[in-house]
Amino acid sequence: MNILFIGDVIGRTGRRALSDRLHRLVDEHQVDLVVANGENAAAGFGLTAPIAMELFDLGVDVITSGNHIWDKREVYDFLDREERVLRPANYPPGLPGRGAGIFTTSAGLKVGVINLEGRVFMNNLDCPFRAADGLIEELQQQTPIIFIDFHAEATSEKMALGHYLDGRVSAVICTHTHVQTADERVLSGGTAYMSDAGMTGSGDAVIGMRKEQAIEKFLNQVPVRFEVAKKDPVVCGILISVDEETGRALAVQRIQERAQL
Amino acid sequence: MNILFIGDVIGRTGRRALSDRLHRLVDEHQVDLVVANGENAAAGFGLTAPIAMELFDLGVDVITSGNHIWDKREVYDFLDREERVLRPANYPPGLPGRGAGIFTTSAGLKVGVINLEGRVFMNNLDCPFRAADGLIEELQQQTPIIFIDFHAEATSEKMALGHYLDGRVSAVICTHTHVQTADERVLSGGTAYMSDAGMTGSGDAVIGMRKEQAIEKFLNQVPVRFEVAKKDPVVCGILISVDEETGRALAVQRIQERAQL
Amino acid sequence: MNILFIGDVIGRTGRRALSDRLHRLVDEHQVDLVVANGENAAAGFGLTAPIAMELFDLGVDVITSGNHIWDKREVYDFLDREERVLRPANYPPGLPGRGAGIFTTSAGLKVGVINLEGRVFMNNLDCPFRAADGLIEELQQQTPIIFIDFHAEATSEKMALGHYLDGRVSAVICTHTHVQTADERVLSGGTAYMSDAGMTGSGDAVIGMRKEQAIEKFLNQVPVRFEVAKKDPVVCGILISVDEETGRALAVQRIQERAQL
Amino acid sequence: MNILFIGDVIGRTGRRALSDRLHRLVDEHQVDLVVANGENAAAGFGLTAPIAMELFDLGVDVITSGNHIWDKREVYDFLDREERVLRPANYPPGLPGRGAGIFTTSAGLKVGVINLEGRVFMNNLDCPFRAADGLIEELQQQTPIIFIDFHAEATSEKMALGHYLDGRVSAVICTHTHVQTADERVLSGGTAYMSDAGMTGSGDAVIGMRKEQAIEKFLNQVPVRFEVAKKDPVVCGILISVDEETGRALAVQRIQERAQL
Ligand SMILES: [Fe+2]
Ligand SMILES: [Fe+2]
Ligand SMILES: [Fe+2]
Ligand SMILES: [Fe+2]
Ligand SMILES: [Fe+2]
Ligand SMILES: [Fe+2]
Ligand SMILES: [Fe+2]
Ligand SMILES: [Fe+2]
Repeated sequence: MNILFIGDVIGRTGRRALSDRLHRLVDEHQVDLVVANGENAAAGFGLTAPIAMELFDLGVDVITSGNHIWDKREVYDFLDREERVLRPANYPPGLPGRGAGIFTTSAGLKVGVINLEGRVFMNNLDCPFRAADGLIEELQQQTPIIFIDFHAEATSEKMALGHYLDGRVSAVICTHTHVQTADERVLSGGTAYMSDAGMTGSGDAVIGMRKEQAIEKFLNQVPVRFEVAKKDPVVCGILISVDEETGRALAVQRIQERAQL
Repeated sequence: MNILFIGDVIGRTGRRALSDRLHRLVDEHQVDLVVANGENAAAGFGLTAPIAMELFDLGVDVITSGNHIWDKREVYDFLDREERVLRPANYPPGLPGRGAGIFTTSAGLKVGVINLEGRVFMNNLDCPFRAADGLIEELQQQTPIIFIDFHAEATSEKMALGHYLDGRVSAVICTHTHVQTADERVLSGGTAYMSDAGMTGSGDAVIGMRKEQAIEKFLNQVPVRFEVAKKDPVVCGILISVDEETGRALAVQRIQERAQL
Repeated sequence: MNILFIGDVIGRTGRRALSDRLHRLVDEHQVDLVVANGENAAAGFGLTAPIAMELFDLGVDVITSGNHIWDKREVYDFLDREERVLRPANYPPGLPGRGAGIFTTSAGLKVGVINLEGRVFMNNLDCPFRAADGLIEELQQQTPIIFIDFHAEATSEKMALGHYLDGRVSAVICTHTHVQTADERVLSGGTAYMSDAGMTGSGDAVIGMRKEQAIEKFLNQVPVRFEVAKKDPVVCGILISVDEETGRALAVQRIQERAQL
Repeated sequence: MNILFIGDVIGRTGRRALSDRLHRLVDEHQVDLVVANGENAAAGFGLTAPIAMELFDLGVDVITSGNHIWDKREVYDFLDREERVLRPANYPPGLPGRGAGIFTTSAGLKVGVINLEGRVFMNNLDCPFRAADGLIEELQQQTPIIFIDFHAEATSEKMALGHYLDGRVSAVICTHTHVQTADERVLSGGTAYMSDAGMTGSGDAVIGMRKEQAIEKFLNQVPVRFEVAKKDPVVCGILISVDEETGRALAVQRIQERAQL
């Protein structure tokens, strides 16, 4: 079976790029489940219920997220209600939403999806390694197919988690830097790994946002208002083929496509 | 003319991988100048004079570096003596070594090379954007061909510098994360750009170091001794074709090759 | 001559505390110049022109600041116009405002005031040590009396700057943590030093802000709206006696007074 | 009953200062239990078994610590063996040592001691707030008298924990910045609080280490070897009077004394 994962969708540019490419990608690669990171889908900062519904309408089955999911308070209730939206599991207990779930494809396959966030250069969260241990044990009781979106900054933390979980899950695919890495592979234990899936949004930008504003920020070191860039939209992600019986990844294919808006 | 840039060479594994592949790469692509980042060439931490000489013997013309160049005190004098080794230019005045130079290819072409370090999640240095402004102005008086190794962590800072310098230099190629990115391109102004050239060392590792040690570090959060990993050596880098008259980049080609040790 | 320095004034609570105590402090201690850090005077985040005028009306002669001075865009023009408001001098060139000035007391004494910001755990700025070197040289041409507000987080950076400048300025008094330290003293070279002057605002709070909100932030690790606390207002600062001829500090006295609102 | 807490003891200078003052302090203030932070007792970096025994011989009853406790591998076994040495409780499970204990005074009073570490600008640990909740519940089954050494950098995190635990423990006294704060008090719920107890070591230094080395570090931003300073030794800490029945703090007194070596 095939899982398509789409990296951080950035504002309207990202949603439009997805609208242009997603159906074709699903058809072409016989995709069974589409997971997309939506932490920047609402104007670059967070997610809202209407925008999540828009992503579902475009063909996304599960939305994962990261540090930006908390940007808009209005989404908190929605996180509690909508099981198809995940936020990193290793935030403190008591917060809205959930960090993992089991999703069933139209062919009836159960796929576990886990969302985690790194700690290096990021928030002060519970250990993602131990959080993964617990969640994998739970989900494995229902399915051998488990996909993880690890939202993290440092390549060392990402690669360490990939190797730590190698052989226990189908895929550890990372997000957050918004730049796609060229290290996609299947690790020796059968886990698909990639240090960053990249972002889905303007390619003529600084991590999806207007480049003049980013340059101004670095030159001046004072607060800057960031807006989503529009030019050269791209869709970035990764396609993972998984053995349905064992949950082992069989192959990976990096996705980086220009969209026509 | 063609510049080959090699990402952070990690310990003996990296040097041996380079020994296996570099001559072939130079021949195959008619390379005029080889620049390699050597900040991790000495057992993963820093550089020494003998190891720098070993890299020159292998065919490297210029060694750039980054935050780890200061790890071994014994290299400080050498930095003052050896013009072919650069350290980031935006460290405070008064430190050993230099951050930029002009190098002449065997065909007699002059190439300016600048080494800079980012500040986000890194050291407290002078502004790399303004440092670049000054150095480019200087080097441009001698040559339109200027290559920059920007050693930085955050993708936002890297991309911002790339766009900021677009049209003023031949290439802004970044290092430090040790994971090659898949975003190599020539920006609209004619500057080659890539968010990370990747590393040259063991591919079955965590950023070139032994994976069990890295996992232990993240699990326990206490000091760990890191050693260079040995398996699956790879050479990562980028090949840049530059118009000799204008200094504009004409094409880029990502390099990621397995080595035989 | 006597300089009274008042630590970060936090919102209306801080301004009202100052209104209650400042005149008495000035009278009691025969203060010649009042310097106050105003980076949090506007509802805890930044400064505005009307609030700066309010502080001047209360008896403040010079307002220094820190990282929060840039919070409100509307103050930028004012920073250019109003010489009595300083922002850290080691921000990049080209930003509004200035980081140092000479101020004349009613007795006709000239006092140089310098505002600097630390880099450890803070913004990516120019080196405060070297910035201090240059500004001191300038100001010393007009007066031996120089007061520095060093707005910084790490005690190591603060104490290092104090010792670095010992004998060259009248005082290095630090701010930013909002907690007064008990290490006020005159260093061996004649420079008054204190690792933090403390804040002027609610003492029944977390660094001047409502304590329930701060606790929520640490428990949940998601964005929280912070509001200025109101109970138990205090005025914190330090009184420095300076030899007018030599600029050397003669004595220091820590100020921590409860206000009646 | 009276608890004397001594802030971070820095190398031999700190141990000698303690040797000079501790007995007098204990006698003068009728101290029932002496707790001292020993994370820097071994040449400024970590602790060893012989040095811990030296501190016990000087009259210390319980040694707490912080991030530096892990600096010397040789202490790990000792942490497992010696119940009187604590390390922060919120490190990952499985590490050597323990983070809390019950200690009995010569008068037969039981005192719970908890050691925690902050996360802001520090290591990626488990939540100290939730860790405190669990440990307090345990210790309260044996005694109402509970002392906490919260080893942390940010004043906001320290004050938030103090208020969070107010009324549940006898004291939240913080360490790590090595600079004593002037905010010691008994909070409204009966918990003694202080943002930093300060350090015990050379007062003519940068947080206890040689000042020229610290200045060099900030000027050059490259690795520096730090050595313990020797001049002007001081003992810093806090004396807390606790109601034996309720565990509420009755009074606090800041301790800052010069030692004669
Ligand atoms: Fe994102
Ligand atoms: Fe993110
Ligand atoms: Fe490196
Ligand atoms: Fe590096
Ligand atoms: Fe402040
Ligand atoms: Fe501040
Ligand atoms: Fe310490
Ligand atoms: Fe510490």
